[in-house]
Amino acid sequence: MVTTTYQVQGMTCGHCVNSVSTEVGAIPGVTDVQVDLASGRVTVTSDNPLEQETVRAAVDEAGYDLVGA
Amino acid sequence: MVTTTYQVQGMTCGHCVNSVSTEVGAIPGVTDVQVDLASGRVTVTSDNPLEQETVRAAVDEAGYDLVGA
Repeated sequence: MVTTTYQVQGMTCGHCVNSVSTEVGAIPGVTDVQVDLASGRVTVTSDNPLEQETVRAAVDEAGYDLVGA
Repeated sequence: MVTTTYQVQGMTCGHCVNSVSTEVGAIPGVTDVQVDLASGRVTVTSDNPLEQETVRAAVDEAGYDLVGA
């Protein structure tokens, strides 16, 4: 198991949290996604290390920006 | 046709706009809902005048507050 925390910009409400959780959670191998709205931190647990670009694409698909890991 | 504009508090993003539009749009007789996120103004068109409490309940169901009409 690997846990990585990313910084995501632009989430403003619970719906945003749900969108990011759904998109990132759909990445193959991801077993858990925890989003802290106030800080913008997204903590992802996966079976194996993820390519940051894969996570960035999922966050982008949800409509937000991954600004760091 | 009757068009009334309400003031709604708490919407922060497009998902919030969708939630309010969906709930208010489901009120019987409502034919159109336009939401302006920046101002919080929700303009509702309906076949007949609506009870404000009906609109308030729909906005509340979506998770927001109707603060005026």
